Amino acid sequence: MTLDDLITPALILDRAILACNTERMSARFAGTGVALRPHMKTAKSAEVAALATAGQAGGITVSTLAEARYFAERGFADITYAVGMVPSKLEEAAAIARSLRRLTLLTDDPRAARALADKAAALAVDFPVLIEIDCGAHRGGVDPESDALMEIARVLDKAPRLALEGVLTHAGHAYHGADVAAIKQVAEAERLAVVRAAGRLRAADRPCPTVSAGSTPTAVQAESFEGLTEFRPGVYMFFDLDQFGLGSCAREDIAVSVLTSVIGHQPQHNRLNIDAGSLALSQDLSANEFLPETGYGWVLEPVGTARVADLHVAAVNQEHGMVTGAAPLPFEALPVGARVRVLPNHACITAAAFDRYHVVDGGNEVTAVWDRVNGW
Amino acid sequence: MTLDDLITPALILDRAILACNTERMSARFAGTGVALRPHMKTAKSAEVAALATAGQAGGITVSTLAEARYFAERGFADITYAVGMVPSKLEEAAAIARSLRRLTLLTDDPRAARALADKAAALAVDFPVLIEIDCGAHRGGVDPESDALMEIARVLDKAPRLALEGVLTHAGHAYHGADVAAIKQVAEAERLAVVRAAGRLRAADRPCPTVSAGSTPTAVQAESFEGLTEFRPGVYMFFDLDQFGLGSCAREDIAVSVLTSVIGHQPQHNRLNIDAGSLALSQDLSANEFLPETGYGWVLEPVGTARVADLHVAAVNQEHGMVTGAAPLPFEALPVGARVRVLPNHACITAAAFDRYHVVDGGNEVTAVWDRVNGW
Repeated sequence: MTLDDLITPALILDRAILACNTERMSARFAGTGVALRPHMKTAKSAEVAALATAGQAGGITVSTLAEARYFAERGFADITYAVGMVPSKLEEAAAIARSLRRLTLLTDDPRAARALADKAAALAVDFPVLIEIDCGAHRGGVDPESDALMEIARVLDKAPRLALEGVLTHAGHAYHGADVAAIKQVAEAERLAVVRAAGRLRAADRPCPTVSAGSTPTAVQAESFEGLTEFRPGVYMFFDLDQFGLGSCAREDIAVSVLTSVIGHQPQHNRLNIDAGSLALSQDLSANEFLPETGYGWVLEPVGTARVADLHVAAVNQEHGMVTGAAPLPFEALPVGARVRVLPNHACITAAAFDRYHVVDGGNEVTAVWDRVNGW
Repeated sequence: MTLDDLITPALILDRAILACNTERMSARFAGTGVALRPHMKTAKSAEVAALATAGQAGGITVSTLAEARYFAERGFADITYAVGMVPSKLEEAAAIARSLRRLTLLTDDPRAARALADKAAALAVDFPVLIEIDCGAHRGGVDPESDALMEIARVLDKAPRLALEGVLTHAGHAYHGADVAAIKQVAEAERLAVVRAAGRLRAADRPCPTVSAGSTPTAVQAESFEGLTEFRPGVYMFFDLDQFGLGSCAREDIAVSVLTSVIGHQPQHNRLNIDAGSLALSQDLSANEFLPETGYGWVLEPVGTARVADLHVAAVNQEHGMVTGAAPLPFEALPVGARVRVLPNHACITAAAFDRYHVVDGGNEVTAVWDRVNGW
């Protein structure tokens, strides 16, 4: 099978680029004493997880219980579910946890922790629990200086089935760092927040074996991991235009793209239509913060990594992408039926529209088809 | 099973509202001589299609070949694939077409029409073909006054396996109508464009049995269907905040919502976090053109149609939605673990994140689970 045999749109994953990306991140953490616990929310694939954990302890991070179940069924025995836990999900979590070494949960709310404690006791299943720390991203988590941190620790201490495992933070604001210096600052804030929280817990004789931080930009740019025990980057496996714009990677490091067909010419508007629209590309515009004229993605040749002039997807409808560029478009070279690929703004969101990867090794041949676990 | 038993996020479909919406649209076209050919790109569900085609001729419209195959396998025998066709999809289209009465294709490009003619001949499968007309939306289609219209008709006339079936247009610009009067103008432009194209074809002795227009806003607002033979609205089955903002429906007519759990409190930012983020809600912001402070959707009570104050999802990350409102949020009434539902901006895009509907009849009981066909 080659790319020519695929119905478009299709999600293409270049294994050679993927392997470089996972090896580079593994090498970055090797010998630091900080475990790489790759976040599988981007790839959602056991084959990708095998590459990302090669030579590591094997622990992974997930963003849904569907991912937890999928990876548990494929032999991953140490999984952190890094989204705030609620009691109504504990029965499903318990069913998964019984089949693996540990499923670690997350909370940032004393009242929720109490409810989880009661439910875990009723279910008779043990869970390690991390306390989420806000390192300045202001999405979730408690302030490292807060009373809430110590209160949650007290709740967990009294819970027969929950064990305080440590602290976790995510520097989501690294995604908006104006430059590498700014991202380095965020990385240091991320580290200090969670190290400080761990210090407070230990000073109160609370256990804190895990001190977890991580995002791809901070994984790439951090100058110190001191005091951390693990790091949880995810999108580095694939990278995307947003990460390129942030300086996390070279453009040629982007491993995923959407294969698409030209389905119409609108020369009077200097526009080509393609069959990748809001569903196949997503409506994510994140890279435009750093890369003007990116729209919904850059247009590549159907094979390899070369870009087609300055072509980009300027607009999307459900199944239509509208491609334009500054110079007159190469309509003759791209007749209706011709194929191109689109580099995504945000690999996590674009990949979620597809249930499988068509894997290539730099060329036109499809050498494997890998599944993904979508949904919840 | 009740809503309380579902793992969140989950897609909820209210069958009572759905049935009202489909009956109202069917009634609108009954006796007009214009066939309703509902567009299944929103619902992608055989059960919904059965409601939408009840009492109709049974023809449907689809936006992907995956939909075409799914509906063909479920007894729908007259399907229009209303996205520009390319030769590389014709083999799959032929495999589907062999099992039904007709699979109608779309083109707006003479060169593509020639390539389709050659490929259909090689495959020995017959296809009716519609010529796409641009009625002012400037997405796809040829101008009704263009030479290209007549050239495509000549190409189809010479193609042994392709038969000119007529003309089709879609008033995508109706989605940006400033008010009902503006949408009525777009509806009339949509009608006149395709009626004019049909007139030119017939004047040249070309067949044109089908004159197809349609979008939900124009279906609701059009004052004349004269000269049309069919109409293809889709999102009216579910409606959404964008359609409410456009004046196509009442807010209580919106049949789909995302059930979600509160997963965190950030009172210092007057914010609740929920477990429906960019994946579960999509990043579609369309309704904000008409409804300020909508963000990624409005927050409803877990059962029924009542809104929770002015709460809306102001920001999204992959698995996190950030809910806020003008007044202090009701943190006590919505502890971590509480459930709410979110009304989507754009039902077509939000629904595509889910592989099934949990069906309710206005209440808390889940009375059915209906599948969806996603992907390509």
